[in-house]
Amino acid sequence: MDNTRYDSDKIKKMVEERTTDESAKPALEVTLKEGIETVWDRLEKQQPQCGFGELGVCCNRCTMGPCRIDPFEGGPERGVCGADVDLIVARNFLDDLAVGAAAHSDHGREVVETLYETATGKAQGYGIADVEKLNIIAAELGIETKKRDKNEIAKDVALALLEEFGTIKNSIQFVERAPEQTKKIWKTAGIYPRSVDREIVESMHRIHMGVGADYANILLHGLRTSLSDGWGGSMMATEASDILFGTPGIKETWANMGVLKEDMVNVILHGHNPILSEMVVVAAQDPELKKLAEKKGAKGINLAGMCCTGNELLMRKGVPVAGNMLNQELILATGAVELMIIDYQCIFPSITQTAGCFHSKIVSTSEKSKVPGAIHMEFHPETASDTAQKIIKMAIENYPDRNPDRVKIPGKPMKMMAGFSV
Amino acid sequence: MDNTRYDSDKIKKMVEERTTDESAKPALEVTLKEGIETVWDRLEKQQPQCGFGELGVCCNRCTMGPCRIDPFEGGPERGVCGADVDLIVARNFLDDLAVGAAAHSDHGREVVETLYETATGKAQGYGIADVEKLNIIAAELGIETKKRDKNEIAKDVALALLEEFGTIKNSIQFVERAPEQTKKIWKTAGIYPRSVDREIVESMHRIHMGVGADYANILLHGLRTSLSDGWGGSMMATEASDILFGTPGIKETWANMGVLKEDMVNVILHGHNPILSEMVVVAAQDPELKKLAEKKGAKGINLAGMCCTGNELLMRKGVPVAGNMLNQELILATGAVELMIIDYQCIFPSITQTAGCFHSKIVSTSEKSKVPGAIHMEFHPETASDTAQKIIKMAIENYPDRNPDRVKIPGKPMKMMAGFSV
Repeated sequence: MDNTRYDSDKIKKMVEERTTDESAKPALEVTLKEGIETVWDRLEKQQPQCGFGELGVCCNRCTMGPCRIDPFEGGPERGVCGADVDLIVARNFLDDLAVGAAAHSDHGREVVETLYETATGKAQGYGIADVEKLNIIAAELGIETKKRDKNEIAKDVALALLEEFGTIKNSIQFVERAPEQTKKIWKTAGIYPRSVDREIVESMHRIHMGVGADYANILLHGLRTSLSDGWGGSMMATEASDILFGTPGIKETWANMGVLKEDMVNVILHGHNPILSEMVVVAAQDPELKKLAEKKGAKGINLAGMCCTGNELLMRKGVPVAGNMLNQELILATGAVELMIIDYQCIFPSITQTAGCFHSKIVSTSEKSKVPGAIHMEFHPETASDTAQKIIKMAIENYPDRNPDRVKIPGKPMKMMAGFSV
Repeated sequence: MDNTRYDSDKIKKMVEERTTDESAKPALEVTLKEGIETVWDRLEKQQPQCGFGELGVCCNRCTMGPCRIDPFEGGPERGVCGADVDLIVARNFLDDLAVGAAAHSDHGREVVETLYETATGKAQGYGIADVEKLNIIAAELGIETKKRDKNEIAKDVALALLEEFGTIKNSIQFVERAPEQTKKIWKTAGIYPRSVDREIVESMHRIHMGVGADYANILLHGLRTSLSDGWGGSMMATEASDILFGTPGIKETWANMGVLKEDMVNVILHGHNPILSEMVVVAAQDPELKKLAEKKGAKGINLAGMCCTGNELLMRKGVPVAGNMLNQELILATGAVELMIIDYQCIFPSITQTAGCFHSKIVSTSEKSKVPGAIHMEFHPETASDTAQKIIKMAIENYPDRNPDRVKIPGKPMKMMAGFSV
């Protein structure tokens, strides 16, 4: 690949330009020396990026397009349908916003569905970890808690939360938590959210060709959609995760790529969904699997989080975190990762290419998020423990395939205090 | 404007190139002579359209972009995140598809909500027009019909249909109508739809940066989303409209721009929503309003439909249809339209500019679809009759402002048979 042409001075300079994370620098150097493509290379190759796209003045919503508005002079001032630049920018923004709200809220839906399956005895390995939180949420939703079994309460809580995605009730309970003055403003502006899914779907309706030409009206619905996610889907995700996996507390832990262990089976959890990662944490503590790891020559199993799943594990279990999204390729370039488990959001589609340069395996787990080249082991609450164990076993069996000559683990990780729910 | 430079031979040629609809040609000529911008002018001004956009190989989903894949050679083969061309095209396609499904299904939701408000006595002017259809749908949904009031049944039907937008039931009743063999194929492919809103929202989740890199998997979910609209939201829209406004039958009626009347108050209904247009049809028959029209010098009130609302009125009431989306500007250029009522979908954002060249008024009626320059008279089932009457009155009062010198109504309209529900 092109990258191999760089001399060592150039490589040192590039490494400094690309990251300030000291623990990431050695791996970044490896990628540059060996010509392993990373996000920074791809950004370079995309230069110059489209100026119309950067300004958001391009529209490709219907077959009369694509259209673009000239930001300078002389060019067209309206798209074929008649949309002006304000409208085009507002619609593009609402589209992006709806994608973000959908991603977070759809994750929330999965957590609430897992709560339901846990309460009804269908989920494998899960339980109600925080009964106090369960009772608080139940009270907020008007659900009776006295003299009732926690699973009965949890079932009603899950059903009440699922109802808030729908279109019959047309109100979201957690929105009531906002200060009165704030709620008044939202009502006056007509942006009080009705349901989680409804606002997202209406966003998509509003950006259709020929629906609404008033950019302010479109942006106002963007606010409503954001509220339906922030006070709806995303808030549910937090609350239901706390009930299932425990409410976070302050913990001392370690951060950066130095959390990898040279003499252990390293498993990276990358993505967003605690439903998956929490079960993997349990599986990694299985005595049988620990024995198997020793049999394969490792001292044990070392889990590390990455991206948002990293944060979920950090704040609830104190699992070390190896970095953010930009480290996902670099951590593979340490040569010390036996397996990376992915669920969804912020997974680079090229991650399996990077893994292919090493012995590392990528295991995808969500039906929503398959990646060519990954081993797909679909995660369902009903079989969660079994799947988590199978994945950890696969990681262990991959340990002997690690090439010690290519292992480059950076120095010690950084000690940190963490545990805030975000 | 630029257009005025065309000589009459050039204008004749351009008219022939732009339409085959004889009734549209005189108005098209007016726009070219007078320099009134239309959709064809804007299409010309957008030339050349972006080749990346036309191929769908451009991605602007995250702040690392915009990215584009070179369809020839030498350029980048992956976006910054690592998405390849197949993935980028598939995600763009799913985005477009979700917009279409959302638009149709959100319309369906409004019709079902109006059915609910009608059944509970909150809607003004609506009623159950087709009791036989109501009973058939009720039976399909497992709702008791014997010895029950039609409004009680309608309430239960509406609630059952609204439930299918949500995420608790996770199945759509009308999907059961499909042939067994087809359903089996859908199940095998994993595309059996769960709920209307859920599939659309999950589509938006799936096109988020870093969710799913397998284009086939993304396209499969596109099929699931389409089914949730086609057998869910859109089918509900048809069924609930039939219950509220009557099931269509074959009718003889008239089509093309020749349906305008020189000596009557011409009102155009443009958009998609029968909730609005059906009430306008009723208002236009009001004896008091007819008297007012006569007082203003007109022989009466002449309604004509346009675009999908045109079809709704055509098939249920036999109201003449003036043309499709491309005629929305031309009909204003006849100088004979007192008022155009718009709701949503396929309304050109520049329509008020066109109307501004004549005496015509544009009245927007949906909170979702405001247009700068339009008079906004929001339509709600609770005040539907009143609003429809006010709009018709406004049209009548605009009749004396028509400039007879600028009126160009084409010859006779075309007789046609219509009345198929689509």
